[in-house]
Amino acid sequence: MSRKIAMSLFAALALLSGCNKESTQTQSTAFADAKPIEWKLVTSWPKNLPGLGTAPEHFAKMVNEMSAGRLTIKVYGAGELVPAMEVFDAVSEGSAQMGHSAAYYWKGKVPAAQFFTAIPFGMNAQEMNGWLTYGGGLELWEEVYAPFGILPLPGGNSGVQMGGWFNKEINSVDDLKGLKMRIPGLGGEVLKRLGGVPVVLAGRELYTALQTGAIDATEWVGPYNDLAFGLHKIAKYYYYPGWHEPGTTLEFLINKEAFAKLPADLQAIVKIAAKATNQDMLDEFTARNVGALATLKDEHKIEIRPFPDEVIAALRTTSLQVITEQASQDPMMQKVFDAYRSFETGVRGYHEISEDAYTKARQ
Amino acid sequence: MSRKIAMSLFAALALLSGCNKESTQTQSTAFADAKPIEWKLVTSWPKNLPGLGTAPEHFAKMVNEMSAGRLTIKVYGAGELVPAMEVFDAVSEGSAQMGHSAAYYWKGKVPAAQFFTAIPFGMNAQEMNGWLTYGGGLELWEEVYAPFGILPLPGGNSGVQMGGWFNKEINSVDDLKGLKMRIPGLGGEVLKRLGGVPVVLAGRELYTALQTGAIDATEWVGPYNDLAFGLHKIAKYYYYPGWHEPGTTLEFLINKEAFAKLPADLQAIVKIAAKATNQDMLDEFTARNVGALATLKDEHKIEIRPFPDEVIAALRTTSLQVITEQASQDPMMQKVFDAYRSFETGVRGYHEISEDAYTKARQ
Repeated sequence: MSRKIAMSLFAALALLSGCNKESTQTQSTAFADAKPIEWKLVTSWPKNLPGLGTAPEHFAKMVNEMSAGRLTIKVYGAGELVPAMEVFDAVSEGSAQMGHSAAYYWKGKVPAAQFFTAIPFGMNAQEMNGWLTYGGGLELWEEVYAPFGILPLPGGNSGVQMGGWFNKEINSVDDLKGLKMRIPGLGGEVLKRLGGVPVVLAGRELYTALQTGAIDATEWVGPYNDLAFGLHKIAKYYYYPGWHEPGTTLEFLINKEAFAKLPADLQAIVKIAAKATNQDMLDEFTARNVGALATLKDEHKIEIRPFPDEVIAALRTTSLQVITEQASQDPMMQKVFDAYRSFETGVRGYHEISEDAYTKARQ
Repeated sequence: MSRKIAMSLFAALALLSGCNKESTQTQSTAFADAKPIEWKLVTSWPKNLPGLGTAPEHFAKMVNEMSAGRLTIKVYGAGELVPAMEVFDAVSEGSAQMGHSAAYYWKGKVPAAQFFTAIPFGMNAQEMNGWLTYGGGLELWEEVYAPFGILPLPGGNSGVQMGGWFNKEINSVDDLKGLKMRIPGLGGEVLKRLGGVPVVLAGRELYTALQTGAIDATEWVGPYNDLAFGLHKIAKYYYYPGWHEPGTTLEFLINKEAFAKLPADLQAIVKIAAKATNQDMLDEFTARNVGALATLKDEHKIEIRPFPDEVIAALRTTSLQVITEQASQDPMMQKVFDAYRSFETGVRGYHEISEDAYTKARQ
């Protein structure tokens, strides 16, 4: 055997041996040597904010585990890579492959997006999930985001939120007049129509604004998130229910080009991890709100109040007016509104004899 | 070069070439050549029964897609491999690696299992999911199934079910006396305590039993499943709400030994696909019940009736008695009952000012 042939054989066998070694390992480990795909996920929340901020972290962990590290997703808090309100643009342009946010933040660009987060006096979490997954809602959402090169997926739900923290008593509709309240989106429009002054502020600005009296009231999420923000320290009353956000759906935003480049199994992993996250956030809020409410009541002795029936009735009537008017000005918003209402009417009829009737029966 | 050496070199290079060829393919395709792991999943439902039976099919599809075919799961309808009521044993013994069923079917073996499906006047879907995932419920379920070598996971939810199909009017508690009704588990015990005659029948036997008058009434699931069974053709009244099953959680059963043999990524894929399925079934029931209810009302002109308040009150009081008595006879059932009630008390307090208050506000 010539030296050259011997060397070739040696090299071949050495490589072959390496190859065989890999193939006798578990299938998962074999992939560990492949160069992983790295994605950035930008969010509209402070890094690791309970519920909203931890959900995308859970999502990233699921994707990492299921792909055996072949797809790693780095999660950025608001402002770390882009500001909270630039998540949509970052994903659309591809500077981040994914985002986690709330669709109603983009109403200036796409008014119809509001229906995919929360509508005053609209559907709750269970109803939204039914509509999105088996009622045609997600297909409409995809249509709404298509011009921006973004694929949307439901990314969690807070359940019915709280009405908010108030330093003024609300005993009648008149008490809404002049009320300076941080309340974004359609809820803000409704308040304005009833004489209030809606203010838009990012989460991190709420505490100081309420403390200094720059605002009289603010809504945020519910006991779990509100306790973390310390809002109980600077507000007198905690009102319920959250008429303006009765089942707030969060969103995953995916850059379509980046998604198209993934192999089919990683595409499935991303989609199904998002679905599991959608469920997981509601589970977390449901369980953790219980403990946080107990802390707020027992430890901090906060005063919890219902909005008076008269106020709820006025908010309800005005909400429908505002939504109907806005929808009439934008064909896509009208299309989504019609679909939303159609499903809502049906599911409310069913829930009257199931979920709602049961709630009454067990009391 | 000797013929022997040449042959060795040729073989080595051929193999090496095969190795290299694989490594230049996409990561997903590379695995397609590996021998897939094949699992059997036995169920307690007729193959492809809407909702209950389609959920494990969706699960199998998710696992197949996410694993790029490395783990394939074949779903068997009730009786195809084992009878409906032998799913637990089949998974425990390892003749099937997985099962899809309902934990309360195993109450003869493990009384505590009932708390992981549905409890009369107990928690609804959202509350059950909160308890199981973030309230310690799943850890207890794992403890309950550990002696049988089974790992449980929530596998879907029907939401609040219907009260059932009746050929006798229920106007008072007296009307329950002598009522022959197919109603399994704790609900059946409650009926018995109030003078009724609970009957245990498999799903496929319901139609004939009700048609021939062998039973006066039967509960099944809700509009979507009930319509598929044709129960409206042979019953006069459709009663609500399903006091006995207010958020029925289905289950995935996994043989622990088989699970331990999977590489970590496939373990994650199985768990997260189960979680996505848990959400997906509730979405499907929510949306499809709406359409089925409309068909039942508009096309089949069925008569939908609420149970009288007096009957609901008697059922509620008796339910608590029955559960308390049963729990006191089995230490593990008592342990799970205590944990269940503790979470239930908290979450009901929170839902009174969130979900329930909102439901009232929007009416």
